[in-house]
Amino acid sequence: MSLHAQTAAYDPDNIFAKILRGELPCEKVYEDAHCLAFMDIMPRSDGHVLVIPKSPARNMIDIDAQALAAMMAGVQKVARAVHSGMEADGLTIQQFSEPAGGQVVFHLHFHVIPRWNGMPMRSHTGTMENRDLLADYAGRIKAALGH
Amino acid sequence: MSLHAQTAAYDPDNIFAKILRGELPCEKVYEDAHCLAFMDIMPRSDGHVLVIPKSPARNMIDIDAQALAAMMAGVQKVARAVHSGMEADGLTIQQFSEPAGGQVVFHLHFHVIPRWNGMPMRSHTGTMENRDLLADYAGRIKAALGH
Repeated sequence: MSLHAQTAAYDPDNIFAKILRGELPCEKVYEDAHCLAFMDIMPRSDGHVLVIPKSPARNMIDIDAQALAAMMAGVQKVARAVHSGMEADGLTIQQFSEPAGGQVVFHLHFHVIPRWNGMPMRSHTGTMENRDLLADYAGRIKAALGH
Repeated sequence: MSLHAQTAAYDPDNIFAKILRGELPCEKVYEDAHCLAFMDIMPRSDGHVLVIPKSPARNMIDIDAQALAAMMAGVQKVARAVHSGMEADGLTIQQFSEPAGGQVVFHLHFHVIPRWNGMPMRSHTGTMENRDLLADYAGRIKAALGH
């Protein structure tokens, strides 16, 4: 048995795969050959971004090691731009693998969440954020990326 | 101003730097040229491991991009071994940058936390885990790594 035989196969109909194929919209902040970054529509704080690999990977268990290494450059660029563009005091980065780990969408994603001193993360309410606000935050982050 | 001018300089007297230099002990599970992985002594769940880069980096803002890419191979190996060795249902991976983000020790680290269905993470109590238990979990994870 392989070390990651316990996880299910990749499902190409997950919503992030649809975003990658352009079948669903997103508020994009960054893209390169290896990853795509866009605003989380149910943010835990203002400026909460998701970074996903372009390769089909369910989570940290099954992603190809090269694809993971390649996407981390994008995660770091986005992390620095979220920190700077949102004028945050810090960052919380999270990655959930499998439902027990907190995963809901089964395409690997890193949460990049700006944080401010004395301000807890919001609970996950399931409420969609206002689209104009998301576009405003995306604009600040893209400006910090030099776009 | 650089994008990461807001963070303080790396402090070589942090406790993870002391662990890297062998000045403080740890319950090691994995090591390669780029990273060291050891048991968190105040675990949020049984089998909670920390993975740190060998290069001096405060957090995601200042780490060299190559060093980050190189250490992610270790993070993934450890993640797979924690998942398999602890017979977990999933994983929660966390990285905190700066105090506002949740960072307490100022050497970059990824938390690899095994998760089981229906079992929330323990609160951060500040209580040290029993050393024999940590050694037992480390043994299971090392066995999954093939060591």
